[in-house]
Amino acid sequence: MNALVAHGGGPTSVINASLAGLVNRAREMRSFKHFYGARLGVKGILAEDWVDLLSYGFEAIEAVGRTPGSAIGSSRQKLSDDDYGTILHIFDRHNVRCFFYTGGNGSMDTALRVEQCARAQGFELKVIGIPKTIDNDLEITDHTPGYPSTAHFFAIAARDVGEDNRSLPSPVCVLEVLGRNVGWVAAATALARHTDADAPHLIYFPERPRSLDQIAADVDRVYTRLGRVVIAVCEGQMDEKGQPFGADVDRAGSTVHRLASNLGHTLARRISETVGIRARSEKPGLFGRCCGPLASEVDRCEAYACGRAAAAAAIDGESGVMIAIRRVDETLYRSEYFLTPLTEVARRERTMPDEWINEQGNDVTSPFLEYLRPLVPQVHAYPRL
Amino acid sequence: MNALVAHGGGPTSVINASLAGLVNRAREMRSFKHFYGARLGVKGILAEDWVDLLSYGFEAIEAVGRTPGSAIGSSRQKLSDDDYGTILHIFDRHNVRCFFYTGGNGSMDTALRVEQCARAQGFELKVIGIPKTIDNDLEITDHTPGYPSTAHFFAIAARDVGEDNRSLPSPVCVLEVLGRNVGWVAAATALARHTDADAPHLIYFPERPRSLDQIAADVDRVYTRLGRVVIAVCEGQMDEKGQPFGADVDRAGSTVHRLASNLGHTLARRISETVGIRARSEKPGLFGRCCGPLASEVDRCEAYACGRAAAAAAIDGESGVMIAIRRVDETLYRSEYFLTPLTEVARRERTMPDEWINEQGNDVTSPFLEYLRPLVPQVHAYPRL
Repeated sequence: MNALVAHGGGPTSVINASLAGLVNRAREMRSFKHFYGARLGVKGILAEDWVDLLSYGFEAIEAVGRTPGSAIGSSRQKLSDDDYGTILHIFDRHNVRCFFYTGGNGSMDTALRVEQCARAQGFELKVIGIPKTIDNDLEITDHTPGYPSTAHFFAIAARDVGEDNRSLPSPVCVLEVLGRNVGWVAAATALARHTDADAPHLIYFPERPRSLDQIAADVDRVYTRLGRVVIAVCEGQMDEKGQPFGADVDRAGSTVHRLASNLGHTLARRISETVGIRARSEKPGLFGRCCGPLASEVDRCEAYACGRAAAAAAIDGESGVMIAIRRVDETLYRSEYFLTPLTEVARRERTMPDEWINEQGNDVTSPFLEYLRPLVPQVHAYPRL
Repeated sequence: MNALVAHGGGPTSVINASLAGLVNRAREMRSFKHFYGARLGVKGILAEDWVDLLSYGFEAIEAVGRTPGSAIGSSRQKLSDDDYGTILHIFDRHNVRCFFYTGGNGSMDTALRVEQCARAQGFELKVIGIPKTIDNDLEITDHTPGYPSTAHFFAIAARDVGEDNRSLPSPVCVLEVLGRNVGWVAAATALARHTDADAPHLIYFPERPRSLDQIAADVDRVYTRLGRVVIAVCEGQMDEKGQPFGADVDRAGSTVHRLASNLGHTLARRISETVGIRARSEKPGLFGRCCGPLASEVDRCEAYACGRAAAAAAIDGESGVMIAIRRVDETLYRSEYFLTPLTEVARRERTMPDEWINEQGNDVTSPFLEYLRPLVPQVHAYPRL
């Protein structure tokens, strides 16, 4: 009996840790003859472009588990109805009886459909989802592997850009962070702040559309107090009419297809024009989801553990489920892993809870920081003169 | 007798190390009653907004020496002819007999003019320049403190964005790096590459204006070979007509005033249009000059040593000189410090040597890598499947 793993959606700093946990746990349990990794996601499944991960030694897989990006590759390809049948046909031909799919809520929907399709055809297949997304927008799980590392990156970015901005005050600095629909990553930049003079001074959330006038008023207020303003804002921030601020938008009929985001620059220009003070922008972009040296070790360990739990679940006969994380000790952080039906997570998006965004919609509240702090290395304050 | 230090231009990850070396060496030598730090550069000198750095303990100064940004602040303010006289008048009133100015070639020009003005007036003042610029564009010195840390940051960025780009191939990714007139930082991204399939696949230099057609042809060639292209390019890259590619340009009469750079985004769009394949961009921006965790330890130590050497030089009676770095051992890297007249470095810009840029103008040559490698932590290759 053989197994196959594939990755869906954007890679993270720790998706390979999940791969390593999965493959090396399966190796220990000796349940599979071949454990295939599909190259470049579902594309590779369909093209039968597979690598046998058990052909690599335990240590080689562990070493890959500490690298960012996806070692087997990923894709954003959407499957057609026919593709599902084709996949099962291919699995049957190669005696693949366990399918592991690592990704976010879209990937969990794909996994669910593979599982449903197999069940409908009476094809014996265990399907296990492994959570992965820097967006932290999966339901049920306390958080998603990948998010803590990106959260840490942008917290460090906000702190250090803030330090630069204190040194040579430029009136406004817009730090564009990852996140199209949810503000989890923007929220994380609040970890950078140790006094109310520290950056970020304003944080915006896609969950709270914001007019340019509101932003301009916020900026003006902070500028009056400190003479400088660092803003953390998601690439997907919308204005009060639900229009993306920065993205170049390609309107084909009624659908709005977003092209490359240029939010930071666009918002900086519009702030300059409206408030009349100079603004600039930084956009670390994808570096924020792949920066190996700034990955969170808690994240890496949990991603690895999710992979191990997935192998164990499949071998236990579970199917149609995703591994999820639960925190079991509030004071001294500790987490455990449990199974949730794919139906609970597929295509569902977890936005920031209302109570973790302040009333004005321009900052987090302290319970959010209590939630996040155990997941990332300490973002310490710099000593000052 | 008192001393004063000020910072000029953009901060770096290690300018505070120079400050710490300077102040703590002076403390050891007990030559000054007060050692003032001017807040926010020359602005603070003129406003007499000073802090006595000897009022902080040795350890407090050492701790600040490990932080990014400028602990006393900096400015880009240009001095008027009158300002020089005012500064000497202020120095006289506070018995400031040693002036240390940390910065790049513009700051060294300011230091030189202070020195000349003092000499003309018969005012006893020792003026010592301390090198600092992430641009690495000072003459005489082997390299400038600040550059190795930014070089390391962008080499890591190119490597890890390259890893991300391999995982989920997007055709073209433009990594915008710091550097308006010189390509030293762009060149450093070459450290990310361990095979000819690794990012960055193309590196451009402000020293080599490049037409969009040339860039498009380069991109097309790499894309045909690998199916993906990561480009490292400076914010100040020019086209063949000497026009900046990305900067929003404000043409007031004959002077071209560059506003916030948006090169990455602009170039990505133009590549998309010309080559017909999708491109995106990342712009870590100022994070590249202030990221504490990715600073180079060699850089930090050398910056500290430059500060110490500056204190010693002033106390030895030197004036009108800048501390410079010389490498004395080619095989096992070691450096030493020497003095160079300010006239040799003021307003002079060191561009990348011709022989360190390849003939096609889209990559470095190996002697450049031999030059850079000892200055930054190893940018190791990730293990792969």
